[in-house]
Amino acid sequence: MEKISRTKVVDLLKRRDFGAMVNVKGWVRTRRGSKQVNFIALNDGSTINNVQIVVDLSNFDEEILKLITTGACISVNGELTESIGSGQAAEIQAREIEVLGACDNTYPLQKKGHTMEFLREIAHLRPRTNTFGAVFRIRHNMAIAIHKFFHERGFFYFHTPIITASDCEGAGQMFQVTTKNLYDLKKDENGSIIYDDDFFGKQASLTVSGQLEGELAATALGAIYTFGPTFRAENSNTPRHLAEFWMIEPEVAFNDIIDNMDLAEDFIKYCVRWALDNCYDDVKFLNDMFDKGLIERLQGVLKETFVRLPYTEGIKILEEAVAKGHKFEFPVYWGVDLASEHERFLVEEHFKRPVILTDYPKEIKAFYMKQNEDGKTVRAMDVLFPKIGEIIGGSEREADYDKLMTRIQELNIPMKDMWWYLDTRKFGSCPHSGFGLGFERLLLFVTGMTNIRDVIPFPRTPRNAEF
Amino acid sequence: MEKISRTKVVDLLKRRDFGAMVNVKGWVRTRRGSKQVNFIALNDGSTINNVQIVVDLSNFDEEILKLITTGACISVNGELTESIGSGQAAEIQAREIEVLGACDNTYPLQKKGHTMEFLREIAHLRPRTNTFGAVFRIRHNMAIAIHKFFHERGFFYFHTPIITASDCEGAGQMFQVTTKNLYDLKKDENGSIIYDDDFFGKQASLTVSGQLEGELAATALGAIYTFGPTFRAENSNTPRHLAEFWMIEPEVAFNDIIDNMDLAEDFIKYCVRWALDNCYDDVKFLNDMFDKGLIERLQGVLKETFVRLPYTEGIKILEEAVAKGHKFEFPVYWGVDLASEHERFLVEEHFKRPVILTDYPKEIKAFYMKQNEDGKTVRAMDVLFPKIGEIIGGSEREADYDKLMTRIQELNIPMKDMWWYLDTRKFGSCPHSGFGLGFERLLLFVTGMTNIRDVIPFPRTPRNAEF
Repeated sequence: MEKISRTKVVDLLKRRDFGAMVNVKGWVRTRRGSKQVNFIALNDGSTINNVQIVVDLSNFDEEILKLITTGACISVNGELTESIGSGQAAEIQAREIEVLGACDNTYPLQKKGHTMEFLREIAHLRPRTNTFGAVFRIRHNMAIAIHKFFHERGFFYFHTPIITASDCEGAGQMFQVTTKNLYDLKKDENGSIIYDDDFFGKQASLTVSGQLEGELAATALGAIYTFGPTFRAENSNTPRHLAEFWMIEPEVAFNDIIDNMDLAEDFIKYCVRWALDNCYDDVKFLNDMFDKGLIERLQGVLKETFVRLPYTEGIKILEEAVAKGHKFEFPVYWGVDLASEHERFLVEEHFKRPVILTDYPKEIKAFYMKQNEDGKTVRAMDVLFPKIGEIIGGSEREADYDKLMTRIQELNIPMKDMWWYLDTRKFGSCPHSGFGLGFERLLLFVTGMTNIRDVIPFPRTPRNAEF
Repeated sequence: MEKISRTKVVDLLKRRDFGAMVNVKGWVRTRRGSKQVNFIALNDGSTINNVQIVVDLSNFDEEILKLITTGACISVNGELTESIGSGQAAEIQAREIEVLGACDNTYPLQKKGHTMEFLREIAHLRPRTNTFGAVFRIRHNMAIAIHKFFHERGFFYFHTPIITASDCEGAGQMFQVTTKNLYDLKKDENGSIIYDDDFFGKQASLTVSGQLEGELAATALGAIYTFGPTFRAENSNTPRHLAEFWMIEPEVAFNDIIDNMDLAEDFIKYCVRWALDNCYDDVKFLNDMFDKGLIERLQGVLKETFVRLPYTEGIKILEEAVAKGHKFEFPVYWGVDLASEHERFLVEEHFKRPVILTDYPKEIKAFYMKQNEDGKTVRAMDVLFPKIGEIIGGSEREADYDKLMTRIQELNIPMKDMWWYLDTRKFGSCPHSGFGLGFERLLLFVTGMTNIRDVIPFPRTPRNAEF
């Protein structure tokens, strides 16, 4: 076959130099046609759009043609021509075809219309479908948007550790990490397992959050963000929980809670705008196939200023709704940790736009949040979104050493694990704030997918670590 | 204190609107001066450069002045003025100073000239030093360069799983991940531990490489890259090994080994150029303080075309050197896995520029590499760098199902773990190639640091998982 340098489908479909000889390589999505002419829809993953290959059967060997089945990988040399019927402006009149890899009829993606459950079982092949191609291209673009947003604003990407020996953040149950021989566990005289011979010389786990280390970095470099995997060993088999997920955690010296809200709102709007500007074909496909309200919802977030409301006011609104006869599954009262139904009522029914809820009761929030002067609430701020509920959780941090110590003692957090964190308040303490965004929560919002297992390539959930 | 919006030091030092009232916030590096005037060197992490604050002592309360010690966090309102003695073009004449956080004399970073060993023990504070501020700003910039390079070329960032149940890559010893109660390990009748009640229902570990899953993605999306943490449970206490490190692994459908070499060379040159263009102040500092040859070495890589040499030719060169009297610690012969001294001889003494060594004996390389027709070598390609040795390892992958199967059987790799990987060769197989770059190895090269523990914020090594 003549050597012509390959053009990606995404670039090819933009070309208008009809008559040029081109080469494309990709996987056959469908093949149809008559006894004289066949049409191959070829996809190479660079875009959701296929390029149509027009094959005059009389020019090709039957042995070759037999191998051009759904899923086969082929290389095509041909003439770029203007297309009328393919849905794209350009198509290719095939001159030479080479089958790089055949694909027999045991290929699981032959027919269309598989259930999402079935596609999860073949997660190693699902990126070859339109839906998951779109989702993973959007996932890529959201990651790029995140790095771009922070880099442009002078934040530094900071890698907090994945393996940790401290477990005081209390954000969730942890996975243990060990190299110990479980068949020969040495114990001391009290029957406690000795970790002296474990890899790190002590018990170690997978991180549940990089925030505490992020605060160390912010109080040195000024403004940082993390973007890495985070782990929760909770036995939650729901469409919203993963045991392994990616989290973004910015932390900024000298920011108060207002700056923090401004940053969160700018940040999430930047990401949503990026999706509409850079992934329109993929978003449109998901809108049309799965969720007719998707694009409207994305545009809605961009249009509106987010409501900023103290928790106490939020409770009043919910109590008034109950008084007027609205039924919630869970009770509403001051001090309650809001359920998703409460958050969604505020966002979707009451305000009809995103809400940043602030100043939560200290009892339902973490020890490091800055205490308000009322003695009851802390400077927390959660961003609540339509369909998703909480998409961002953050706060201004307690900068005062004594107040922080008191809270740590009240909650019986073991101090031996906390000395390094406390040093930030001991040596040149400063006001600072930050938040966490679950990357897959953002992706649920931007793709319209309803199960979090469908926005990460290889989901890890209870009893599932395939591939 | 009057409310003036904060300017970061990096931006302030570029301003020339002398006379303007400005606010800066940051940490005191040094304070010196006479009984009338003091000079504070203030740093906020945004740049390696300090801004000089000029303080007319007669205008300030002694109680405030006492608190302005090394490490204290202060907010300064003042007039931007042209500077003569500070080493920068601009400085600030202080009008108001607020101490945000004091810092007593127990602060470990008071004096200069700490050893790197000591700074590792206070890794939670070392980002506040010039050296580690520079290193971590460069680290950020290298991550940005990597995403930018691949995004511009149409690659998709793909998150391969961190927790894995397969262990056939064989790249190194693995950490076990478990939620089992180690005090009550259930065993079957043969004495084997039962993993049915572990979180994933089977034994699980931390990934040693995302490559195999990356190949799944490349054969669907065309061109992908990973950038995530990777783990090796090897008991290697050396300046070149970490138990937790970050790796970048591009994988590209339709690329052969030549394309792969081109990609690797373009990629690494892009990163090095980015460092010189975007982190010059930080690189210059490290050059002047630690490694006078650093900038020259970085520029050298950009100037030269990398040598491309088959392993067999490389061995000949080394054997000739031995014959001429060059002493190596380890023996040289065809089939040997080259030691760092061999790699560095080729790069630093023989060619005096980076070398891409190709076509290694199959016995010393992984099962998935494409076999050459000689039956002895595989299409591996390792990029060897001055001072570092191997910085990139990659190959064209074996695309042929039968050849791959034969190799898997020869090596006794358990097939039950490999079915999903083999599906890429069964259903529309295609030529493809990729490589892996250890992020911290790149950083050693770009920063001139000599211990890998000093280019990652919180190193994990045997018996060390602090912070």
